[in-house]
Amino acid sequence: MKYRIGVDVGGTAIKAGVIDENNNIVSKLSAPTDNSKSFEEVIKNIADYSKDVVKKAGFTLDDFPCVGIGMPSFINPNTGLLVFSNNMGWRNVPIISELKKHISIPIYVGNDANCAVIGETIAGAAKGKDNVLMLTLGTGVGGGIIINGKLFDGGDGMGAELGHMGLILDGELCTCGMKGCIEAYASVTGLISQTKTMMELYPDSKMHEYAKKEGKISGRTAFETSKLGDKPALEVVETYINYLAASIGSLVTVFRPDIVLIGGGLSNQDDYLLDPLNKLAENYTFAADIIGMPKIIKAELGNDAGIIGAAYLDIM
Amino acid sequence: MKYRIGVDVGGTAIKAGVIDENNNIVSKLSAPTDNSKSFEEVIKNIADYSKDVVKKAGFTLDDFPCVGIGMPSFINPNTGLLVFSNNMGWRNVPIISELKKHISIPIYVGNDANCAVIGETIAGAAKGKDNVLMLTLGTGVGGGIIINGKLFDGGDGMGAELGHMGLILDGELCTCGMKGCIEAYASVTGLISQTKTMMELYPDSKMHEYAKKEGKISGRTAFETSKLGDKPALEVVETYINYLAASIGSLVTVFRPDIVLIGGGLSNQDDYLLDPLNKLAENYTFAADIIGMPKIIKAELGNDAGIIGAAYLDIM
Repeated sequence: MKYRIGVDVGGTAIKAGVIDENNNIVSKLSAPTDNSKSFEEVIKNIADYSKDVVKKAGFTLDDFPCVGIGMPSFINPNTGLLVFSNNMGWRNVPIISELKKHISIPIYVGNDANCAVIGETIAGAAKGKDNVLMLTLGTGVGGGIIINGKLFDGGDGMGAELGHMGLILDGELCTCGMKGCIEAYASVTGLISQTKTMMELYPDSKMHEYAKKEGKISGRTAFETSKLGDKPALEVVETYINYLAASIGSLVTVFRPDIVLIGGGLSNQDDYLLDPLNKLAENYTFAADIIGMPKIIKAELGNDAGIIGAAYLDIM
Repeated sequence: MKYRIGVDVGGTAIKAGVIDENNNIVSKLSAPTDNSKSFEEVIKNIADYSKDVVKKAGFTLDDFPCVGIGMPSFINPNTGLLVFSNNMGWRNVPIISELKKHISIPIYVGNDANCAVIGETIAGAAKGKDNVLMLTLGTGVGGGIIINGKLFDGGDGMGAELGHMGLILDGELCTCGMKGCIEAYASVTGLISQTKTMMELYPDSKMHEYAKKEGKISGRTAFETSKLGDKPALEVVETYINYLAASIGSLVTVFRPDIVLIGGGLSNQDDYLLDPLNKLAENYTFAADIIGMPKIIKAELGNDAGIIGAAYLDIM
């Protein structure tokens, strides 16, 4: 059978999907994650949703070669231990053995950001590429890397925490407790914070009006207002894109992907974000003039990347 | 036959060695690199030294399974092309096919910093470890990484340029033309520059006397003078170790090695460098309290690491 099943477990929702041989999602289920439950119960839920989604597609779990599950966690593939999940509040959970209580086919569990880059590489914007770097800009900065056609996740699967590489030595406080991380500057949270700072400095900026209309300050506030020629907004956007460019430059220097994907809502800014980003990232990449510079483009699959990528964890 | 041959080609010298089954160098040759010669001539020299060093050990090249060569260069293992070498002044040299004109056994060519970490992992301070990060502090910062027992060198072998990851956004000018690279701060060149700045600010610092005695300002100037209680020297040392700690923290966050090795002359400062470095690096490493922090120790093999590592390029 060429159908596969992938489950994307997030801090707020569990999404399970069955994909066909063309990587189209043919059946999908989504339910909120209940973080008040014990890990045994949540894991049983994950198993139940897996069974339900294949049933919905007209199959049973035994028809599938394996089940792949992506989670916002550190997972050690060598021990089958979920070492830590900030979103779930879990530490040292024996995820594989717990899942085996409910599922009899082979189980693969991986980090959600890694699943996203696997999904995009197999079925999305990086299809056919051997070396792919993906950054998902959201509340945090999720990062995933494919090198020589295989997922790179560092020693014991504990690495590739790209959002927590340093960008500015002893800079802004990050949610992780460290200072100056990429995530503190290049996440949408970072952008919003930079937007707020400029709004306080410039009470006449059009950003105030835009935020009022939207009912909140968001990742769009500075971007959309800058298009109206608002100078403080433009400064926010330029500074933010420079942070992102420097982050990508360092990562390209270390990983040398063939292509860089940007995921998350901000990527909808398309060329308004990507054109200056492509130009600036070259300045922060070692020997870009000699080795060349990978193109930075928009990810394609959106939220489905996690399900599709999880479904292929076994081969990556 | 269990003997192996490795060649370490540097900007100033070509060193060839034969190692026995215990990774002891049983025969060694060294000659200056003549950069005025064409690449064809230099490559013929490399081949000649390889033949000479095995002859010196009582063998012929045909007795060996392969020859491994480390060079200060970007080498694409997929194309056999030496893409770029700053030290040699070479670009797009067909290194493998050129070597084949003179050598009939299999040939492996790799980056010299990568060879150093291979050598230390097989026969030195990281023996038996699966995940190793090595930084060699010298004129520049050489970096090499082993992950899951295999060399990590990024897409098409063009990555792992750890010294050119950003440390301080738009900071000090690096020799590579970019600003704020790890190399600009954590190399011995960076340390010397930081030493000079403080010496200018503090004409009464004991660093002046020490430098005069040594005939130059070196990587030792601040370190040795700080041991005498000289405050400006101590400030140089503390700031420098913090740069190094932050660099290592970012790299551990991305790669999660089991151990970090420091190579180069500065590592002779031993615990005076390593104790504060181990302590500080934790502050710059994501989730060090949960996942743990690899120990930062001194590399063992010195200049021989490059020869030994080159000899094992075929299995890494």
